[in-house]
Amino acid sequence: MPELRRDPVVGRWVIIATERSRRPSDFAPPARRRKGGPCVFCGGQEHRTPDEVWALRPGREEANTPDWMLRVVPNKFPALRIEGEIEPTAEGLFDRMNGIGAHEVVIESPDHDAVIEQLPLTHLAEVFRAYRDRIVDLAKDPRLEYVMVFKNHGDPAGASLEHTHSQLIATPVVPLMVEEELAGALQHLRLRKRCIWCDIIRQERQARTRIVLEQDGFVALAPFAPRFPFETWILPAVHRSRYEETPTEEFIGLATVVSRVLGRMREFLEDPPYNFMLHSAPLRGASPDHFHWHLEIIPKLTRVAGFEWGTGFFINPTPPEEAAKYLRGETPRSAVS
Amino acid sequence: MPELRRDPVVGRWVIIATERSRRPSDFAPPARRRKGGPCVFCGGQEHRTPDEVWALRPGREEANTPDWMLRVVPNKFPALRIEGEIEPTAEGLFDRMNGIGAHEVVIESPDHDAVIEQLPLTHLAEVFRAYRDRIVDLAKDPRLEYVMVFKNHGDPAGASLEHTHSQLIATPVVPLMVEEELAGALQHLRLRKRCIWCDIIRQERQARTRIVLEQDGFVALAPFAPRFPFETWILPAVHRSRYEETPTEEFIGLATVVSRVLGRMREFLEDPPYNFMLHSAPLRGASPDHFHWHLEIIPKLTRVAGFEWGTGFFINPTPPEEAAKYLRGETPRSAVS
Repeated sequence: MPELRRDPVVGRWVIIATERSRRPSDFAPPARRRKGGPCVFCGGQEHRTPDEVWALRPGREEANTPDWMLRVVPNKFPALRIEGEIEPTAEGLFDRMNGIGAHEVVIESPDHDAVIEQLPLTHLAEVFRAYRDRIVDLAKDPRLEYVMVFKNHGDPAGASLEHTHSQLIATPVVPLMVEEELAGALQHLRLRKRCIWCDIIRQERQARTRIVLEQDGFVALAPFAPRFPFETWILPAVHRSRYEETPTEEFIGLATVVSRVLGRMREFLEDPPYNFMLHSAPLRGASPDHFHWHLEIIPKLTRVAGFEWGTGFFINPTPPEEAAKYLRGETPRSAVS
Repeated sequence: MPELRRDPVVGRWVIIATERSRRPSDFAPPARRRKGGPCVFCGGQEHRTPDEVWALRPGREEANTPDWMLRVVPNKFPALRIEGEIEPTAEGLFDRMNGIGAHEVVIESPDHDAVIEQLPLTHLAEVFRAYRDRIVDLAKDPRLEYVMVFKNHGDPAGASLEHTHSQLIATPVVPLMVEEELAGALQHLRLRKRCIWCDIIRQERQARTRIVLEQDGFVALAPFAPRFPFETWILPAVHRSRYEETPTEEFIGLATVVSRVLGRMREFLEDPPYNFMLHSAPLRGASPDHFHWHLEIIPKLTRVAGFEWGTGFFINPTPPEEAAKYLRGETPRSAVS
């Protein structure tokens, strides 16, 4: 059973994956690339994954069969496990609990060589709908407090399989970073009676320097204090605290904006490794007025080193105003390389 | 002039290095390896660095000449600059200030192929003394609030030059991670009237499972909730809040423990890339009873991916109890690979 442990000084939780415990010689396997035959996520290989928990298979009913558009399956090597009780225990200063949670994989296409930003927009919209439906389903489990949806693309960004996919990890505690966002945003709401992300959108619309694009109800912008070069946030233009409350008809707008931003990154940064992470309000309690869900996209172009790990400061060599200009397409491709 | 910017939601500062601004095609240069001739940090190449600010050159007086053991020089491409005023300004919701600070490089040996854990202990002790003396000197500048000392070893850990060196970055604000440590530790002091790190050492001495070694006044341990496999902390066994208050005669003990821990990592993990970061109390105010300086060593064996960036959770596949056993040398080398 994996274990959740809390650092007694800063309150940071870590998952100690005891079952996949690695010996020193086991580290750093390179991303598994397809060698000739199809990979475990490819169409026709359904028997090689755990049984699907969600799928889009137009015109067919039977689970775990070919001819699907999208499949969601439990991770074969889960960081957290769904079976068992949380059982929080203390060991002197230290807190631990069983690693209860869920870890699922969203296989975004049966085609090994698919690139998400090149999928038809209606297909990509279904990926975003799958995230929502899985969050809604996982929220029924009262042990879970949060669901983080994320995507790792490329080996330097932590992808261990190259076939396009994203992941959901549901945790029994609200993650520290979300707690920090909630705390900062609550303070803003108390002082100013407004959502801080709504205020950011308003200010950025006036400044125009960091907006990448705005259409179909979504805004893409380079944040004022980005950790990484070309870091981009995508937010609904109107206030929405929970991703899972998104009406189905809005996913096409989200797909359009994500597809355009990722397409620009691919064009200007030459298919960069990247992560994206969906920040939504925690599963429990009333929908908070001070949280505004957003998707953070971080290309991995720089290395995180000792200064960043020691301070929490980040050194970013690309001002967001310049990054936004590139991503708006105002710098011709030929001037770049 | 580089710029410090604050994220309005979570309060995280970033350094926007406007002067070294990179275009999309400028990213990810591999670590510069020596091609035949000596590198800029090698003995005899003193004219290729900015003028030294500290040096150990036994029996010689003249600065920037050969036959040194250790040199500290300003970084040629500093993340922060010493000249100018901080000038904090607001832009609506956003805070920024000029990127005032210092960025220095500690060249730990004139020998290009030196490995710090294989230096004579008296030499390594002088490296630790250099850190102290530079912090004491930088603390005279009233604009500076903190000095982070760190080392990046190996390309995946962010080292851009392979010649052994460490760095100091002095910042005009206390970094978020140190603030978080201070806040957690203060709460512990208020409740229990004790330093939390002293309590951790006491508990770990009883448990014995996560102590790597203890000698000459220093303790090396695998923390209970490590972010990374084989993460190791080294602390003075008695309470000391500020690194720069370390008496000279204690550096030999620190050198001994650091050298043994890095030597074991090199042996078992095959010269892993790593970072180390020195966490000390902020420069200003009285020496706080609740802070206990420590050196954090993090081998970079796993990739940080979307889940970690989104949540602040870390997934660690090696329990610290197992890591400590390896680093204590209880697992014979032959059983590992």
